[in-house]
Amino acid sequence: MEKSTMADMHGFSNFAPVPLKAVRIHDGFWSTRMDTNRTVTIPYELEQMEKTGRIDNFRRAAGIKCGEFEGIYFNDSDVYKWIEAASYSLATHPDGKLEAKLDEITGVIAAAQEADGYLNTYYTLKEPDKKWTGLVAMHELYCAGHFMEAAVAHNQATGKRSLLDVACRLADHIGSVFGPGKRRGAPGHEEIELALVKLYRATGERRYFDLAQFFIDVRGQEPNTFVQEALRSGDDKYDPIYCQAHVPVREQTEVVGHAVRAMYLYSGMADVCAETGDKSLLDALEKLWRNMTSRRMYITGGIGSTSSGERFTQDYDLPNDTAYAETCAAIGSVFWNHRMLLLIGRSQFADVMELALYNGALSGIGLDGKSFFYVNPLRSRGAHERQEWFGCACCPPNIARLLASLGGYLYAQKNDVVFAGLYAGSTATLKINGADVTITQETDYPWGGDVEFRIDVDSPIEFELLLRVPGWCEEAAVAVNGQDAEPTGACDRVSIRRTWGPGDTARFSMQMPVVRVEACPQVEADYGKVALRRGPIVYCLEEADNGGELFQLALPAAAEVKASFREDLLGGVVVLEALAEAPDLSGWDNVLYRKASGSGAVTRKMVAVPYCTWANRGPGEMTVWLNNGR
Amino acid sequence: MEKSTMADMHGFSNFAPVPLKAVRIHDGFWSTRMDTNRTVTIPYELEQMEKTGRIDNFRRAAGIKCGEFEGIYFNDSDVYKWIEAASYSLATHPDGKLEAKLDEITGVIAAAQEADGYLNTYYTLKEPDKKWTGLVAMHELYCAGHFMEAAVAHNQATGKRSLLDVACRLADHIGSVFGPGKRRGAPGHEEIELALVKLYRATGERRYFDLAQFFIDVRGQEPNTFVQEALRSGDDKYDPIYCQAHVPVREQTEVVGHAVRAMYLYSGMADVCAETGDKSLLDALEKLWRNMTSRRMYITGGIGSTSSGERFTQDYDLPNDTAYAETCAAIGSVFWNHRMLLLIGRSQFADVMELALYNGALSGIGLDGKSFFYVNPLRSRGAHERQEWFGCACCPPNIARLLASLGGYLYAQKNDVVFAGLYAGSTATLKINGADVTITQETDYPWGGDVEFRIDVDSPIEFELLLRVPGWCEEAAVAVNGQDAEPTGACDRVSIRRTWGPGDTARFSMQMPVVRVEACPQVEADYGKVALRRGPIVYCLEEADNGGELFQLALPAAAEVKASFREDLLGGVVVLEALAEAPDLSGWDNVLYRKASGSGAVTRKMVAVPYCTWANRGPGEMTVWLNNGR
Repeated sequence: MEKSTMADMHGFSNFAPVPLKAVRIHDGFWSTRMDTNRTVTIPYELEQMEKTGRIDNFRRAAGIKCGEFEGIYFNDSDVYKWIEAASYSLATHPDGKLEAKLDEITGVIAAAQEADGYLNTYYTLKEPDKKWTGLVAMHELYCAGHFMEAAVAHNQATGKRSLLDVACRLADHIGSVFGPGKRRGAPGHEEIELALVKLYRATGERRYFDLAQFFIDVRGQEPNTFVQEALRSGDDKYDPIYCQAHVPVREQTEVVGHAVRAMYLYSGMADVCAETGDKSLLDALEKLWRNMTSRRMYITGGIGSTSSGERFTQDYDLPNDTAYAETCAAIGSVFWNHRMLLLIGRSQFADVMELALYNGALSGIGLDGKSFFYVNPLRSRGAHERQEWFGCACCPPNIARLLASLGGYLYAQKNDVVFAGLYAGSTATLKINGADVTITQETDYPWGGDVEFRIDVDSPIEFELLLRVPGWCEEAAVAVNGQDAEPTGACDRVSIRRTWGPGDTARFSMQMPVVRVEACPQVEADYGKVALRRGPIVYCLEEADNGGELFQLALPAAAEVKASFREDLLGGVVVLEALAEAPDLSGWDNVLYRKASGSGAVTRKMVAVPYCTWANRGPGEMTVWLNNGR
Repeated sequence: MEKSTMADMHGFSNFAPVPLKAVRIHDGFWSTRMDTNRTVTIPYELEQMEKTGRIDNFRRAAGIKCGEFEGIYFNDSDVYKWIEAASYSLATHPDGKLEAKLDEITGVIAAAQEADGYLNTYYTLKEPDKKWTGLVAMHELYCAGHFMEAAVAHNQATGKRSLLDVACRLADHIGSVFGPGKRRGAPGHEEIELALVKLYRATGERRYFDLAQFFIDVRGQEPNTFVQEALRSGDDKYDPIYCQAHVPVREQTEVVGHAVRAMYLYSGMADVCAETGDKSLLDALEKLWRNMTSRRMYITGGIGSTSSGERFTQDYDLPNDTAYAETCAAIGSVFWNHRMLLLIGRSQFADVMELALYNGALSGIGLDGKSFFYVNPLRSRGAHERQEWFGCACCPPNIARLLASLGGYLYAQKNDVVFAGLYAGSTATLKINGADVTITQETDYPWGGDVEFRIDVDSPIEFELLLRVPGWCEEAAVAVNGQDAEPTGACDRVSIRRTWGPGDTARFSMQMPVVRVEACPQVEADYGKVALRRGPIVYCLEEADNGGELFQLALPAAAEVKASFREDLLGGVVVLEALAEAPDLSGWDNVLYRKASGSGAVTRKMVAVPYCTWANRGPGEMTVWLNNGR
């Protein structure tokens, strides 16, 4: 571990994201998915929310409808995430019908809020006397957090304060229960921390930030409130490491426990850090980030190796077939890394964000927009298919809100510095020193590595365009207005500071060869294997293209791997093709073991497709890692 | 599948085993283990039987002691297996104290028998009204079978009829319940079939054989009595494939379901076949044997891949780390293959018997004689240690009875043909055409492949000495009285027919090189890997000799593997040593994935020890399969 912290090395950048409302994505890769998200996923998920009683729970709590609470006790949160997704969609694609539907639902939610500001349909309907008694597992604060995020998104999309006011009343209610001099306690499932910071930023009310900071600071302090609560309920085995409360957050060095909770906590820590410049928080975040990215993350950006507790396990324990790699955890990694990128401004965070986004998170939704993976293995023997829905349906609305808000991840800005963190055909409208600047990206990224930026301004203006050089990129060139330029900057960023006139262009050309990736030899599951990556896209082999017994395929060291765009396949993807080797099966009839013969191999054509598009052609084998041939 | 059956190819041999009482084993390998079995294991297991109430259950059923039934409902069977083991021990090593203890226990058992012959302490004490109502799962017939085996062994060791008479009364009682014109039904856990054949052979009472045949013939016939019983108890999901009752036994082609049950069934089928010459049974046995040995058996002879149901799974599904490979299943494979050897007389059956014996079965007991594996994985990350005992303690007395009866597995005889199926330093006394013939083997097998047979007779006598050529042996030579001989016979057997005089010798020299074994490419778990075998001994690498991260080791194709006897190690074993390759770990600090570099390997000394001796030096990693290097 380097002695100097990130902050010492880089200082705080404290970029602000260019808001999603200011960005239109038009490229082939994302706009197709975002259109499907808007036209299929969001309506489909609303149907599911209605069908499964998730919205009826609010109607019942509001007294509009009769009946008992239905479903899992934290189902409110799914509705909130859907409202957030729908709001982001409205922000870029106004839709009167959707807005009216949102008005109805938000009205019901407001009506379900109790007089003192309390809002949670499970407790209101089922256990009104037990409020705030189950912080370890009952997710009241988690639900509240998702509600605050939804309310902020709704406010920013529609300008309406209806939901934001409900959120403020809820936050004030929570603030009346928890805080210094009040109740010590923190959420078993983190989420409210980052949400309170959002609410603070949306309202300017510092008390919300203070409450976020309280929840972060109290976490893991002795006496441990989680252990105390578990003991009260007769459980003397509860290990608070599961919810990252084993030690105070500033003393944490390894990513542990439930992976989604971890990501939401670290996101909240980064948010607090961005407001306070607290170096001790940043030091902890640095250690956690290094531990995750160098020991506990799949090549797809997926995290949380085991279904048992949906959690992180040990260093280098990254099994492919039993990988859990929950969609929500990869999404959480996008959230955390985006915040780290804004905080520190280094491309390594955008690299991890991009990796999770294009691979481990995106694999969570089918090309049809209405089938979902909760679990994202890197090896399947054919038993994995996306499902229409889940009893615990956290992932579907999470991927919907991510996709609907993608525009907000493209640019970060600080004064007259504009940092392009993700590349995608798009148009963004920024204010730089009071002037309107429109930046258009033309690119077929992620299939190609050329990005042309066009600047549209009324009159020349000086600003710095900071381009991320992805970690996967070994060679890149820059041309400004068609002239090769010698850019400045660190190796992970190219800086072009100049006075930009109307129609000026900057062309950023990243070489995007196919790369054979190997894992650290400590990773048993990947030992002796390679994976194929091209740009940010991790590839896999599917039975549909390659037949079964994928574990027998080896990619010879000398094999040429060709990349080509296949418009007809999987909505249009770059596929990789090579001649692989497979074992000569002759002589094995009715033989299970024999003296090793070093017998020859046969050549077998191999086709790899983007991991994010797997399992869209019926069940079948899949593998990300294949044998490293000779 | 060949069209001709084994019987067509080879004819029935119908060898009889030379009984264990006639054989003394004196070699270093087995005699040490058999001494430990006699002096440590058998007394230790008796203590456990007493401590856990297993014998008290009989005292309670006999009215000698008060109290409820204690333990698992089939615990009687453990006592029976222990009596069998103790009887075998008495047969070769008279021991007044042990015999007196046996008299006491057998007296208690006789007293526990009900007036009508019924014997099962669980039902007598706990559910006297429910006898014979739970054939699917309650193991009454299974316990009865083990009792019959114990009674026969006790009779043969001591000459006493006390226990045999109890067994006959029990068998007659069962025969009054089940059979043609009486109740249709068969045991959920097979065992009684082979036991009834033993009882028939010990008593000459054909009705016991007929009952065995009935149980085998009725199995899997429609209407399926297991399915009917399950339905009566409200279970409409019961799949009789679990207990090999999905189709009639003659129609079975794949080894399925609970592995121990399968082995006991097939053993019983072979026993019935030996008496009847029923070719349809042999055809089924052949198909089952081929399926098991060419698709569903570990290289250690272990069988039953999964803990879920302790059962066979699919062809080629042989995971190493999660292998179940129950000790009892490997022992069952010894039983079945021994019967196949006697039935058909081909060495392939002795090969599988020997493989299971020296590896997958023997690994079930520690060198201390009082620690046991129920599960025998081929890869451990350090979590496996032998246990003192189990709640379900089938394995410890099973291995005890196998070791105590080992002498009975060495020779098979039919008239004047003596077939040496296993090699071990030993002295056997046979009757050939009325004359006493003593055959002594001097050998350090399995560490060396030279076996000297010395024949002691009063006067010259002609007989055929048939020597098994093991499947692992590629080159062997024979010398008679010091003169190289040109033996006759098929490739799997060497025949020496001559007139043997007093002191004549035959020296059988089997080359025993270290062999790298590869698995059929369909076996994903072993793909790209090799295992080391020398003679019948399968090797493994342990952390104690090699450090951890065993998955990183590769054995280069050109590496010389040296075998040497290490007297100091694990009670004296041949170890294998080689220079293996391990990855160069430089450059991997804090790096999880990188562009594949084809970077170099470092050399690491590698020591392999016999699999049967693993886990005798504390917990640690272990692997049977290692990477096949370049």
